[in-house]
Amino acid sequence: MRLVGIIGGMGPQATVFLMQRILDLTPACGDADHVPLLVCSDPRIPDRTAALRGAGPSPLPALIGAGKRLEAAGAELLAVSCNTAHAYLPDLRQALDLPFIDMVDEVAADVSGRLPPGAAVGVLATDGTLEAGIYRDALAARGLRALEPLPEDQRRVMAVIYGAAGVKAGCVTQEQADILASVIGALHRRGARAAVAGCTEIPVVLDAFKPDTEVPVISSTDVLARAIIREAQSRA
Amino acid sequence: MRLVGIIGGMGPQATVFLMQRILDLTPACGDADHVPLLVCSDPRIPDRTAALRGAGPSPLPALIGAGKRLEAAGAELLAVSCNTAHAYLPDLRQALDLPFIDMVDEVAADVSGRLPPGAAVGVLATDGTLEAGIYRDALAARGLRALEPLPEDQRRVMAVIYGAAGVKAGCVTQEQADILASVIGALHRRGARAAVAGCTEIPVVLDAFKPDTEVPVISSTDVLARAIIREAQSRA
Repeated sequence: MRLVGIIGGMGPQATVFLMQRILDLTPACGDADHVPLLVCSDPRIPDRTAALRGAGPSPLPALIGAGKRLEAAGAELLAVSCNTAHAYLPDLRQALDLPFIDMVDEVAADVSGRLPPGAAVGVLATDGTLEAGIYRDALAARGLRALEPLPEDQRRVMAVIYGAAGVKAGCVTQEQADILASVIGALHRRGARAAVAGCTEIPVVLDAFKPDTEVPVISSTDVLARAIIREAQSRA
Repeated sequence: MRLVGIIGGMGPQATVFLMQRILDLTPACGDADHVPLLVCSDPRIPDRTAALRGAGPSPLPALIGAGKRLEAAGAELLAVSCNTAHAYLPDLRQALDLPFIDMVDEVAADVSGRLPPGAAVGVLATDGTLEAGIYRDALAARGLRALEPLPEDQRRVMAVIYGAAGVKAGCVTQEQADILASVIGALHRRGARAAVAGCTEIPVVLDAFKPDTEVPVISSTDVLARAIIREAQSRA
């Protein structure tokens, strides 16, 4: 198997949860069946949404630095366990020699296998991800249409991620799950046929409380986990 | 904070659980308060107990290799998330330049702060850890006496770790927790005033099911997590 490098720590809980999902989704009878991983969990990487909104320093130098650490350590391919950081993926590809797994494109490919062309897909993500348009573009490239929460709902999604009682503050609560389910319900009423949990903090909440939702929710964490297992096992 | 390298993957579930405990035990309001980690989770490292019993290849070259990867990636100190691998710690220290956190000594220090001199401490660990005597020696150096399970109980501990329905096979069950509690009970009846969960697979089970035990159980995972947080924050 190939040694997969993960640029993580954005946040650290989402990175640990990704690693857990890689374990859960790997058919294994013992340690040696599991994917070898090199993980740089660096929570000092500047906030991606703040940077994309012009309210903070760019995370790009730190993202490149983490990638170079993993390259130096012998990683054979790279993944980034933060959707918003994928706004910088073209720059990362230019700065580093190793191939990258593109979580956002993997998610769009997964959703496109489930829905008819032209279908609307709700996107639960950070302000940075939405403003950078990375899901809008990736879904459009697969013939699908991104549907964003209305502003008040988007503020509630951001509070689940970044609030004083948010995932990044170490809280994972039923109330967060209820908020996410309610935002997904509103997207469904506006026409969404599925929803993407397009921030790796969100599946931490959904997995813990498994709220009922009107439409299927595609976890970007699980899609990335499956892509990491697949690419680790591929010869390419 | 200093960047802590973790030689892990022995097993991968125990490594993910250690990372989760580092998160849980860090006082944090947001991502940036967390410890930066470089984790080499390499489940291909040969089994430590098999090697120590002469029934398999030495893990030492792979352990050194993982340490060198973390060194190349810029880690500032190292930890090993497997108790049995600590049998090779003197060799690892010789082969690598970075300072190591010694989980076994950290555990012995923790227990010695809770018990009077000469007290007996039950040790739940792999056959390899017991045969290498690393807890026996570390507890003795702190004025304490290691008490090992009787052979039939030791076989049950090994089955919890390595069995077809063991932690390394991806199973975490109430039955395992009951077995561990029963072994701890037997150690208590033989005089143990505390027990050490001296294999990082064991706290995965104890944390999931929290069985009642007659004596306090010291988790080697939690002790290592606290030492990692402390050393990451120290200037030395």
